[in-house]
Amino acid sequence: MNFLDIIIKKRNKGKLSKDEIKFTIENYTNGNIPDYQMSAFLMAVYFNGMDREETFEFTHAMANSGKVLDLSEIPGIKIDKHSTGGIGDVTTLILAPLVASCGVPVAKMSGRGLGRTGGTIDKLESIPGFKTEVNIRDFINQVKEIGIAVVGQSGELAPADKKIYALRDVTGTVESIPLIASSIMSKKIALGSDGIVLEVTTGNGAFMEDLDSAKELAEIMVDIGKDAGKKMAAVLTSMEEPLGIAVGNSLEVREAIEALKGNIPEDVKELVLTLGSYMLYLAGKVDGPDKARPILEENLYNRKGLAKLREMIEYQGGDPSIIDYPEELPTASIVKAFEAKEDGFVEEVVARYVGDAAHRLGAGRETKEDKIDLSVGIMLEKKVGDKVRKGDVLAWIHANDEEKLKIAEEFLTKAYKVTQKEVEKPKLILGIIE
Amino acid sequence: MNFLDIIIKKRNKGKLSKDEIKFTIENYTNGNIPDYQMSAFLMAVYFNGMDREETFEFTHAMANSGKVLDLSEIPGIKIDKHSTGGIGDVTTLILAPLVASCGVPVAKMSGRGLGRTGGTIDKLESIPGFKTEVNIRDFINQVKEIGIAVVGQSGELAPADKKIYALRDVTGTVESIPLIASSIMSKKIALGSDGIVLEVTTGNGAFMEDLDSAKELAEIMVDIGKDAGKKMAAVLTSMEEPLGIAVGNSLEVREAIEALKGNIPEDVKELVLTLGSYMLYLAGKVDGPDKARPILEENLYNRKGLAKLREMIEYQGGDPSIIDYPEELPTASIVKAFEAKEDGFVEEVVARYVGDAAHRLGAGRETKEDKIDLSVGIMLEKKVGDKVRKGDVLAWIHANDEEKLKIAEEFLTKAYKVTQKEVEKPKLILGIIE
Repeated sequence: MNFLDIIIKKRNKGKLSKDEIKFTIENYTNGNIPDYQMSAFLMAVYFNGMDREETFEFTHAMANSGKVLDLSEIPGIKIDKHSTGGIGDVTTLILAPLVASCGVPVAKMSGRGLGRTGGTIDKLESIPGFKTEVNIRDFINQVKEIGIAVVGQSGELAPADKKIYALRDVTGTVESIPLIASSIMSKKIALGSDGIVLEVTTGNGAFMEDLDSAKELAEIMVDIGKDAGKKMAAVLTSMEEPLGIAVGNSLEVREAIEALKGNIPEDVKELVLTLGSYMLYLAGKVDGPDKARPILEENLYNRKGLAKLREMIEYQGGDPSIIDYPEELPTASIVKAFEAKEDGFVEEVVARYVGDAAHRLGAGRETKEDKIDLSVGIMLEKKVGDKVRKGDVLAWIHANDEEKLKIAEEFLTKAYKVTQKEVEKPKLILGIIE
Repeated sequence: MNFLDIIIKKRNKGKLSKDEIKFTIENYTNGNIPDYQMSAFLMAVYFNGMDREETFEFTHAMANSGKVLDLSEIPGIKIDKHSTGGIGDVTTLILAPLVASCGVPVAKMSGRGLGRTGGTIDKLESIPGFKTEVNIRDFINQVKEIGIAVVGQSGELAPADKKIYALRDVTGTVESIPLIASSIMSKKIALGSDGIVLEVTTGNGAFMEDLDSAKELAEIMVDIGKDAGKKMAAVLTSMEEPLGIAVGNSLEVREAIEALKGNIPEDVKELVLTLGSYMLYLAGKVDGPDKARPILEENLYNRKGLAKLREMIEYQGGDPSIIDYPEELPTASIVKAFEAKEDGFVEEVVARYVGDAAHRLGAGRETKEDKIDLSVGIMLEKKVGDKVRKGDVLAWIHANDEEKLKIAEEFLTKAYKVTQKEVEKPKLILGIIE
């Protein structure tokens, strides 16, 4: 077999065989296929796509390019969760402890963020002492002992995906639905959970800007998971305005702690309960997702979810006192109000621009080497549908630098749109795919 | 400027600016842009193309990536010739001396062949002692002194093209009309001739299999040349059956010598006179291409063209006695007849299969490192339209190996098709683009 023939086959809209895909992934992972051939192949896939069977094989080959975990020694049905991300997306920090507190083991690996704000791992690192680099043995032991672990992605799992993703990132081949789907699912499959609940975001603050693409991505990922024998569900959500009220790393950790104390914004609650319901349902705890909602709500308000978060923080070396004293998390030196310039109703809070504001304050990174400022970000006081009067605080800017603060203000000016007509609260959950 | 943005722009069907193209070529040539980004870019160009302006700029940037020759010290209007190649394509070895003998200086650089048979440079190397590696100073001096030089492509000209072509060759991005056109024309423009006559071949033995693509390629190349201030013409020719009677390196040199002695196959003569007419016309020797034909024919039959070939061979260190004793050229140890199995008329001599036969005998190379057997090949006795009787020799196979001979016979069996109905001689010249 010759990789040039495989490139040309895909370039000419051919369908790749299982053996051709296996050959591609194996030989790229072990360095026999050079980057310059792989990037041409990926661009051909960008243009000509891959059908379901090809995507299944591609995912399978990447999942099997490294270690595939066996979580069978952890009792119960293990359910993983993944989100395609957004602005202010604090979900994992609330959802994982809450679900674990209901008796469903959550063994989760997360990534760092490249983009407007940090990823879950960056956010967790704002907790003093919290360790995210955990070896696989300790990771499994932790889930066995306390039912939850959220750690950084292990390089031992799906190394092909890691190498291919790094190449896609610099060759304009990120935005391909079969490549996105196989990248996400290869890591999830290698992790070895029994089921996966996906949140696929759509809108200006998401990777998939339109609902049709998001739906297509969700359907492919659900199909890939089922093909690999996993229990699957996907929730389509709107990412037109930021999720919840905090955008920034330590600010989002504070939001998560508050949420698990019962002070949870409506949209975050709706999302957590929806995703959590499917996690409990796939785990066989209930015989329908709706039956899970009261269980989750109970553990939100009786603070069992919060107790699970505390347990996880302690287990992973973090300082649990931040739960009682969240003000001990990194804080910015300047907190400035961003005010409404007229009376009316908030029509838009463009997630992308709020993300840009946080990014310019230092909350995100451009390259893997960039350092994140964990303390900065935006706290939203008003969201879409809220009534405002001139001079009301729309948002608080948390900054460490006057120059950056000014840029953040400019982005918030672009983000907030106030109108005279009453505006309805937007719908967050756009669909469920099972 | 950022190359990733340029890749994504082209991927999204954007039009690249002059500066973006200049940036791309300069930074790839000097190594700032890595191969893995360039190959993704080239695949995006494969899919989304480049318009005329982009192609002009791309060619211009490649032509200017190295030395651009100034041939002004050679008196007269210098006309170059290029063919997109075919099977048995001996044209240059006949045409260049013939045109030079009419007083038009021909300064030509040629390539080696990758594919079914060798290139002009490989063919010339079957002449004992003949040097094809000539430095630029000696090259120009030679044309000044004797009006002709045919040497190997200098690495000092259009190094960007050399680097990009090598990458295209291994990444499935060869078959792109703007990339083919700019590759050919960048080298021609860097060589500094005043005019260029192109032969663009089409058919099963050519790179462009259909006439429309060949025409498109010819038109783009003519436009590129004119944009660069060159006098241009292109001749579209059919490459369905091999050109002339010889396919193989030293066999084609013998055919060229015979042709310049006046023993020239009809199709080769038609092609040489057509291309030569345009060369003389562009050089201002005549006021219309038709006026050039009698001049060329005269120099064919009075052997002035042959004398010019002898002069060139002597100047470049080759043994001129091969002109009088062509049998001194490398010869194969086995010469075997391939016979007609039935009476009828030759309907097809599929150029590609005859090329494959020669290739399997050892006349071509797969990689740059492969060694060519200069002596082997096929001599055609019958071509399309010829009447044959069972047992007639259709072709002679020149081989050095019994096993390879058998494979060549199989390919010739596929190449020759004999029918009962009378068959017309096919048309060679399919169009002229000026």
